[in-house]
Amino acid sequence: MHRKKIRVVEGALDANNTIAAANRADFDRADVTVVNLMGAPGAGKTSLLEQVVRELGAVRVGVLEGDIEGSLDADRLAHLHVPVTQLNTGAGFGGECHLDANMVRSALPTIPLDAIDLLVIENVGNLVCPAEFRVGEDHRIMVSSVTEGEEKPLKYPLMFRACELVLVNKIDLLPHLSFDLDLYLANLEAVNPGVDVLLVSGRTGEGVDAWRDWLAHAGHRHPSPV
Amino acid sequence: MHRKKIRVVEGALDANNTIAAANRADFDRADVTVVNLMGAPGAGKTSLLEQVVRELGAVRVGVLEGDIEGSLDADRLAHLHVPVTQLNTGAGFGGECHLDANMVRSALPTIPLDAIDLLVIENVGNLVCPAEFRVGEDHRIMVSSVTEGEEKPLKYPLMFRACELVLVNKIDLLPHLSFDLDLYLANLEAVNPGVDVLLVSGRTGEGVDAWRDWLAHAGHRHPSPV
Repeated sequence: MHRKKIRVVEGALDANNTIAAANRADFDRADVTVVNLMGAPGAGKTSLLEQVVRELGAVRVGVLEGDIEGSLDADRLAHLHVPVTQLNTGAGFGGECHLDANMVRSALPTIPLDAIDLLVIENVGNLVCPAEFRVGEDHRIMVSSVTEGEEKPLKYPLMFRACELVLVNKIDLLPHLSFDLDLYLANLEAVNPGVDVLLVSGRTGEGVDAWRDWLAHAGHRHPSPV
Repeated sequence: MHRKKIRVVEGALDANNTIAAANRADFDRADVTVVNLMGAPGAGKTSLLEQVVRELGAVRVGVLEGDIEGSLDADRLAHLHVPVTQLNTGAGFGGECHLDANMVRSALPTIPLDAIDLLVIENVGNLVCPAEFRVGEDHRIMVSSVTEGEEKPLKYPLMFRACELVLVNKIDLLPHLSFDLDLYLANLEAVNPGVDVLLVSGRTGEGVDAWRDWLAHAGHRHPSPV
């Protein structure tokens, strides 16, 4: 019974990877670099996206917003005058807790790939399942807020291991928290040695320049398998 | 194809509900009130649990800790001298993002039901899937941190609708955030009219007395179906 379940799950991930490869081929053909932006609910993904999109200069950005329902995040980005596509996962039972390659594929016809250089896919707020589903991205970036505690890399290791860059957000709150940044960074290093880390604040804009540079120099990279 | 998928999912939820009812019967037989504690990663579930368990007086408490891997939360509770059982969901693919009734059932033999009055089940940090799986609980309580933003009830309505009590945590940080508490409460009221709400801080202990009273008077209640 248990073994059967595992086999079904592997089959689902195989199908996902096949579709992710098809997405990736379409992105490559259009010369679009794709970032999968992940993190817990309220970690500050949309705020950081607003901050960074504002001044990417010559890089033409598009955004794909994944949410269970509603278009609150897409609405927040509307004033940035970049193409934003809303993708709702609510059709699954109670709402899917992650984006998968097929959902992203279903949105492709509405994304103007020829008019953008960088597509940021904001995943559903969740530290578990999004890490298990590639969607055809070049890069996986995770937003992790200091308000979530030092032990999060140890509690959600797959997610922290899946990404190339961790944006440690809300550092403006550090003086008001009993958060041990060194301990957090040691925990992060333990689960993902050598991962890129940037300290940022979506509220004050601190560190956003460094993220902008990272994105501008990211380009296509074939992510290593999870 | 789509219809078939929905039917499979309904089947899985049916099986879950059957097992949840069996758990519930065991809890009732032992006269144990059961709370399913849910919330996003880092919302402060364990901290609030530490605060409230410390002084529940005549109420004998047990804790079931659900985590993907590790026993960090269980270790944090060890000094409270209450029976703590660790349940790891990591056996699923990449780790299950929620507890289900069968996982809780598998842990029952290790929980001293005859020696406790209240069992708190701390779910995996996630605002989506835990709301879809009953585990046999009397009450569902959600921890929602003010650092997560005002719009969370609108973005994760199933979770906010599934609970009887929302603990609005980290209110000690309000002076340092641009968080509109009235807007948050209005959003909450919109998705779950009349839900109980308590403003708390796991760090300062503010509001924990009120939560303790709520728990002490909660008793068995048959939760309404989602």
